[in-house]
Amino acid sequence: MKLVRFGEAGNEKPGVLIDNERKDCSAYFKDWNRDFFNNNGLFQLKQILEKQTDFLPVVDEDVRWSAPIARPGMIMCIGLNYSDHAKESGMPVPSEPILFMKPTNTIRGAYDTVAIPKASLKSDWEVELGIVLNKDCLYLENEQAAWDAIAGYCVVNDLSERAFQLERGGQWVKGKAAPGFTPVGPYLATADEIPDVMNLKMQLWKNGVQMQNGNTSTMVFGPGHLVHYISQFMQMEAGDLITTGTPPGVALGMKVPEYLREGDIVELEIDGLGSQKQIFKSYNASTNV
Amino acid sequence: MKLVRFGEAGNEKPGVLIDNERKDCSAYFKDWNRDFFNNNGLFQLKQILEKQTDFLPVVDEDVRWSAPIARPGMIMCIGLNYSDHAKESGMPVPSEPILFMKPTNTIRGAYDTVAIPKASLKSDWEVELGIVLNKDCLYLENEQAAWDAIAGYCVVNDLSERAFQLERGGQWVKGKAAPGFTPVGPYLATADEIPDVMNLKMQLWKNGVQMQNGNTSTMVFGPGHLVHYISQFMQMEAGDLITTGTPPGVALGMKVPEYLREGDIVELEIDGLGSQKQIFKSYNASTNV
Repeated sequence: MKLVRFGEAGNEKPGVLIDNERKDCSAYFKDWNRDFFNNNGLFQLKQILEKQTDFLPVVDEDVRWSAPIARPGMIMCIGLNYSDHAKESGMPVPSEPILFMKPTNTIRGAYDTVAIPKASLKSDWEVELGIVLNKDCLYLENEQAAWDAIAGYCVVNDLSERAFQLERGGQWVKGKAAPGFTPVGPYLATADEIPDVMNLKMQLWKNGVQMQNGNTSTMVFGPGHLVHYISQFMQMEAGDLITTGTPPGVALGMKVPEYLREGDIVELEIDGLGSQKQIFKSYNASTNV
Repeated sequence: MKLVRFGEAGNEKPGVLIDNERKDCSAYFKDWNRDFFNNNGLFQLKQILEKQTDFLPVVDEDVRWSAPIARPGMIMCIGLNYSDHAKESGMPVPSEPILFMKPTNTIRGAYDTVAIPKASLKSDWEVELGIVLNKDCLYLENEQAAWDAIAGYCVVNDLSERAFQLERGGQWVKGKAAPGFTPVGPYLATADEIPDVMNLKMQLWKNGVQMQNGNTSTMVFGPGHLVHYISQFMQMEAGDLITTGTPPGVALGMKVPEYLREGDIVELEIDGLGSQKQIFKSYNASTNV
């Protein structure tokens, strides 16, 4: 199944994507949120869709694509999880996963315009494989339990302001937290739709020029390892988003970095998970975004 | 005013503390959450309490003290914000605030029992001044605007597993995220109750022995500076919690650190903000907490 959400920010409804058409599921479910995932919602949704789907209202094409999951309890991010990206960032390949967090209010839809933060000179892109959890997870016993806790996968652009992240002291969150810095979607593909998550092409283009061309096969730590690992330190919750690191090709890794500027268009896609497209605009003092 | 919440986890109600008695405000307000603070809730609450308070039901003494705010959008933490604590941690005093995040599901009430995490050998305490925001904040113009955005203050124990934080690679979140690692309260004192937030004694005892004895007067960066600073990187939201660093006296700073063990009792207090008390228990495989 491919889960979507649609409608303006703060007023989104849950739906599914079937044959390139969005269908409204709001008569059956409140949202794709923690309660939904924890209460066997994916199984219930599957049962509804197995009968027939003609009775589900079609969503108009011009309605906004929201992020495919409700605002989660946390976004947990994995740093330097592709060995070539660690190299281009001038950092060692980690011996165990590096974790950091993004505020959950950074989440946006796959096609929403993104504001370059006020005073930003080094805004950068990162195509990443997102994992969404299907249950609350604490101290999982092994990697198999972790794989069983994964609801599905989605495309994430883990936007990053490199000066804020690396030149302002301390931890990374300063460069990861600006409004709109986490486009997610266009849809959440349930795990059964992705037969081999460790062999998905990941690509990103800026203004039509390919910048990233990687594959999940070169991840240092795969999804099962990551979910099991994180659960040893904290309770993750159903509906939480884990974004798993980026392959090479970010601006930070260029000899002369070409960071994002007003009018730039970034497109990114992962095999089986669809594609995103964002237009970047400058900070606007009159709207304060 | 002193805001409290009471009741079992997942079923808390909002109240106020008047003359050491908790009064139930749930007939008037749903919760002390983002909506409440953003919609001038403190002003409305004040108007209700100014008339008379006899009509508010008294909360039984044996009802649990929950954290005094609803689960926020984020917990933003300030690292090494007391110069003496930076020294005892063997780290330099930062030239600008160090930021890191804790998952919001770590929040507990001031008197809740805390489980030492599975496999933890270095669980540590940190008495901290917590700030709660009264409005959404992005790109605040100056420190005065930041002071105006503060709803009030509370005691926070920023519990920290030092091996997870410092010996497992990368960022600090691994040691800050275990279940129950953020006791908050017992109450939120509104800013008008605290005439000089830069001169509050902060104390912590373990098993009756004083471990921390500091004062907010030695903070490197004060509340106005911090709120203004964070708002330059992200949108904080009304009801969010900022915890502002700890003075010296944590286990990490001892020549022979005496980390927390089963049965330890930690008590902490800040002038005007009340006191907390936690009993620590071991990880229990049968309950998985």
